[in-house]
Amino acid sequence: MEKLQNGYLFPEIEMRTMAHIETYPDAKLISLGIGDTTQPLPQIVASAMAKHSWGLSTVEGYFGYGPEQGTKALRQAIVDKLYGGLGIKETEIFISDGAQSDISRVQMLLGPNMTIAVQDPSFPAYIDTGVIMGQTGCIEEATGKYGKIEYMECNAENGFFPDLSRTSRTDIIFFCSPNNPTGNAASREQLKQLVEFAKKNGSIIIYDAAYSAFISDDSPRSIFEIPGAEEVAIEISSFSKFAGFTGVRLGWTVVPEELLFSNGVPVMKDFNRIVTTCFNGASNIAQAGGLACLSPDGYQGICQLVGYYKENAKIMMETFSSLGFTTYGGQNSPYVWVHFPGNKSWDIFDEILEKSHIITIPGSGFGPGGEGFIRVSSFGHREDIIEASKRLMNLLQ
Amino acid sequence: MEKLQNGYLFPEIEMRTMAHIETYPDAKLISLGIGDTTQPLPQIVASAMAKHSWGLSTVEGYFGYGPEQGTKALRQAIVDKLYGGLGIKETEIFISDGAQSDISRVQMLLGPNMTIAVQDPSFPAYIDTGVIMGQTGCIEEATGKYGKIEYMECNAENGFFPDLSRTSRTDIIFFCSPNNPTGNAASREQLKQLVEFAKKNGSIIIYDAAYSAFISDDSPRSIFEIPGAEEVAIEISSFSKFAGFTGVRLGWTVVPEELLFSNGVPVMKDFNRIVTTCFNGASNIAQAGGLACLSPDGYQGICQLVGYYKENAKIMMETFSSLGFTTYGGQNSPYVWVHFPGNKSWDIFDEILEKSHIITIPGSGFGPGGEGFIRVSSFGHREDIIEASKRLMNLLQ
Repeated sequence: MEKLQNGYLFPEIEMRTMAHIETYPDAKLISLGIGDTTQPLPQIVASAMAKHSWGLSTVEGYFGYGPEQGTKALRQAIVDKLYGGLGIKETEIFISDGAQSDISRVQMLLGPNMTIAVQDPSFPAYIDTGVIMGQTGCIEEATGKYGKIEYMECNAENGFFPDLSRTSRTDIIFFCSPNNPTGNAASREQLKQLVEFAKKNGSIIIYDAAYSAFISDDSPRSIFEIPGAEEVAIEISSFSKFAGFTGVRLGWTVVPEELLFSNGVPVMKDFNRIVTTCFNGASNIAQAGGLACLSPDGYQGICQLVGYYKENAKIMMETFSSLGFTTYGGQNSPYVWVHFPGNKSWDIFDEILEKSHIITIPGSGFGPGGEGFIRVSSFGHREDIIEASKRLMNLLQ
Repeated sequence: MEKLQNGYLFPEIEMRTMAHIETYPDAKLISLGIGDTTQPLPQIVASAMAKHSWGLSTVEGYFGYGPEQGTKALRQAIVDKLYGGLGIKETEIFISDGAQSDISRVQMLLGPNMTIAVQDPSFPAYIDTGVIMGQTGCIEEATGKYGKIEYMECNAENGFFPDLSRTSRTDIIFFCSPNNPTGNAASREQLKQLVEFAKKNGSIIIYDAAYSAFISDDSPRSIFEIPGAEEVAIEISSFSKFAGFTGVRLGWTVVPEELLFSNGVPVMKDFNRIVTTCFNGASNIAQAGGLACLSPDGYQGICQLVGYYKENAKIMMETFSSLGFTTYGGQNSPYVWVHFPGNKSWDIFDEILEKSHIITIPGSGFGPGGEGFIRVSSFGHREDIIEASKRLMNLLQ
């Protein structure tokens, strides 16, 4: 624990925000920071959860412990709706209380002696859970990088896909697409290369697909669209951004039967043991909501939600573009990744907060490769996005 | 992972049960096995969750991410209702999705280099998460014990409290009271000795109080009733058995400010980092339900639920006593611990399942000290408990 850098990114932002509120108690703060959903759930989804909740006060509607891996109905619905034709089985789906919890459970599965690779920049939980598990060395002040981690540079020059010919072999490769924070979705060709690379090296890919619902083009929504991925990949996903379940808490992880440790033990067997020992299942109310999301009407409702946020992202991209900034992401992702060449991310963060009362995320919080960028989230009410756009036009033009 | 014994206890029971159902498809199976609540929630609690769920489909009732540590309202309500006068602060309460998840998060906090002590018998998750984290040696076939774990014998002879004068010093002491499986609640005098022992040795007690609501006598309901415990103990607790939330998923962990690692770092600071990195908060619907449980009417409702199960426990105790068996627990706990001298636990389990179609838990599944016992759960509908009692009278008289 001592190796961990002072603040986990989000609590640090929270602290600076609280200080700002104290200084400007009357300012109307707009958050384009932490990717937190803001729009009400479709009624069909809320109603399914309300009905389930109320049922718990009746003899016939009461349920105690469910399977730690989630209800069969929800696991099957995920297969049918989201993995159709990919050969994924219901038994390979493990329902969770969200992707963040499953990242740490996957880390418990893997243990301290694994070497890991991460995209740079990347979502901090991969590295931070690695540090907590003891997989890494100490942080080097000069580079801002932890020892024993392979940082795979992802930047505009390489199309946000690492140069695998220069990437060292590791046991584990964390890969997030559409990426948080850059907003870039890897292409089918790129993911084929990644799967090939993992196969050659005997590595396991931990594929974070939490934002896959935001993909607009023909980029794969699942690593399992790539033939052979079932032998090298685990996929972690979530209802949080897909269905506005950030506070309801529901996610899932796919561990294919074909994925084996080097000693021949199926990874699925050990992950099942982790899930049954370290977890007792997601809330059955949340699971009832998840099932409703995957019904025809529910799915239509959550696709509309995703569409709403994508429209917000478009407004933000246009705002920064019209100001002459280069932006990435936003097309296949709720995040817009804005370049401020020659500037420090935290300085940009502080200036935008100080002068426009808008919270963003400093790119350097996602790793040294994020320096000079800020991440702008499109989660918000439309009127706030439009207001933020106006304030940014005033500040940055 | 390879060190772990073949089956986690509960999945093993599940497997044998499924095989039994195949052989006797028409038998009416009664479960006195896994401690799974069966009685409907108080309407006030279900209604609070239904209202919260429905609210999520409205602009004013929608919530995204909440604090990872839980809502301030719920943390404060737990302090007021359950820790009144003990000096526990709201900021020392961390809301979780249940005790089992928090046991593994506490293990992540502690890391692989800790030595641990457990009561024998004890709830398997302490040892199993310790094995997963790499804190233990391999299992020794002859004794059924893992290397590097201090097993603290708890049996009828020592009043189910370990002889601390013969207990080796460890970094961590897992202690569960009222105990699962023996049903015994430690007395104030015993807990004073335990706190004293931990202080002398610089150990941390992980106190599992998941069954404290079942205490009928003046045994402490919290380790923090013992002066000085705040310097040596973490308490893990849950709404599961207390309020019938086994499927809803809600719990909490108390980490006092005064508890420090040997290097002076507050344990609370590091646990907060674990919670914010490896968890994203309990479902906000479940938290709304938890808050309702602690309202005056809600609390009355859940106390009635606990009373119902305690009456079941009394029926079970009387059943076995009238058959001439010695029983423990049941007074301060939903579990009755029944002795079958000279028998193997799994044989008793198999015989009762085979001939009476009743699921129990073999005591040896809780450690070598549980051999010769079965654990009988009082969670069930009254008519099933009475029917089980009749069948057991037929089988065992």
